[in-house]
Amino acid sequence: MRYEFYYWPSIQGRGEFVRLALEAGGADYIDIARMPGKSRGMTGLMRYLEGKGVKRPPFAPPYLKAGKLVIGQSANILLYLGPRLGLAPRGEADRLWVHQLQLTIGDFVDEAHDVHHPIGANLYYEEQKREAKRRAEVFIRLRIPKFLGYFERVLERNRSSGGFMAGGRMTYGDLSMFQVIAGLRYAFPRTMSRRGHRYPKLMALHDRVAGRSRVAAYLRSERRIPFNEHGLFRHYPELDG
Amino acid sequence: MRYEFYYWPSIQGRGEFVRLALEAGGADYIDIARMPGKSRGMTGLMRYLEGKGVKRPPFAPPYLKAGKLVIGQSANILLYLGPRLGLAPRGEADRLWVHQLQLTIGDFVDEAHDVHHPIGANLYYEEQKREAKRRAEVFIRLRIPKFLGYFERVLERNRSSGGFMAGGRMTYGDLSMFQVIAGLRYAFPRTMSRRGHRYPKLMALHDRVAGRSRVAAYLRSERRIPFNEHGLFRHYPELDG
Repeated sequence: MRYEFYYWPSIQGRGEFVRLALEAGGADYIDIARMPGKSRGMTGLMRYLEGKGVKRPPFAPPYLKAGKLVIGQSANILLYLGPRLGLAPRGEADRLWVHQLQLTIGDFVDEAHDVHHPIGANLYYEEQKREAKRRAEVFIRLRIPKFLGYFERVLERNRSSGGFMAGGRMTYGDLSMFQVIAGLRYAFPRTMSRRGHRYPKLMALHDRVAGRSRVAAYLRSERRIPFNEHGLFRHYPELDG
Repeated sequence: MRYEFYYWPSIQGRGEFVRLALEAGGADYIDIARMPGKSRGMTGLMRYLEGKGVKRPPFAPPYLKAGKLVIGQSANILLYLGPRLGLAPRGEADRLWVHQLQLTIGDFVDEAHDVHHPIGANLYYEEQKREAKRRAEVFIRLRIPKFLGYFERVLERNRSSGGFMAGGRMTYGDLSMFQVIAGLRYAFPRTMSRRGHRYPKLMALHDRVAGRSRVAAYLRSERRIPFNEHGLFRHYPELDG
């Protein structure tokens, strides 16, 4: 099946967790909003958000069309794709664990976003710079260590070899964790170069995922949108400790 | 099976979405942190968070112990409980849809929380009152209408009778939506009394869920912790428009 992926065409954002899974899983997919042509581009993206006839509309991008199904919420899309792309374990207990990790990554990512948008996503960063500075201090001092410390512990306690978070094989949770580390390094280079070494297993996970052949090919390709100051992870030096 | 539920003993918070499902589903469960005795209360709550031997530790409460499984993240717990308590539809597509709604409710709830904690959950409200005022204005003007308008549309587009969000039977998503409406009415009574009538199907859903016999019995019981200013939905009159 050819999947149709719908997300903003110029940012990684929350869509990147899905793009990474599609790429690492070798899926046949098209990235609708990045394609030229009628009913592609932004017109295509809006189709299932604003269409009056859509029975089960997503609240926001990203969403995935798989046959007749339209699936929204990145963690939910990964719940669906995981088993189909060989990126989720087999048993229910293991799948719930990977999903739990993904949801916790989602919480972390929400907080990373709100660092530059503490008052509201509808306002520009420039309208909330002062509040962002305060929030960034708390995020760097308390939240980054709490989340990274947690995920480092998850890696330590996984008895399977391979260096992944759940069991012995790479899951969509590992792909998402790679993206978080890459994003934090982009947004908070000073903080991460100072403190990254406290989380050796996470840093090794980042490199391990980046080195997988399909992931590496994707990262080198034009399909990988570079980090920028419109996405989730933004580099504003004044927020970096 | 007797489920063990773990959450803060004095607030509804994110745990309430799980409590409502356990109650509405007639589950046999115990609320560990609210029980007296050794290895109960706060000591009990901390057991799987801080225990060194826990193979798959949750990041934070709520979490559920089901036999040997320890499941964290409220949406993930509901994904597990839904089919077991008759609160989820049968097919995969329908289950994904309910989960998607739950995750969107989770996003809404995160924003409702951050209204009173825009800078950080680790600081007191009194330390971020000014920022909270700004965030509340945006939340009331833009975010409440966006989310409630979306869920009203979901109800309109469900072709099954019964007045629920997915199919013809109540799911955990409906229970969570009830909780959100109740919480918004508590936290923003002025706003909701002014604007609630714009969302007639949502208001009817609230009453329908509240009227289900098990839910009604729970709401009358001492097991239902009242809303208060330590939880997710807090009534600070200065933030209510």
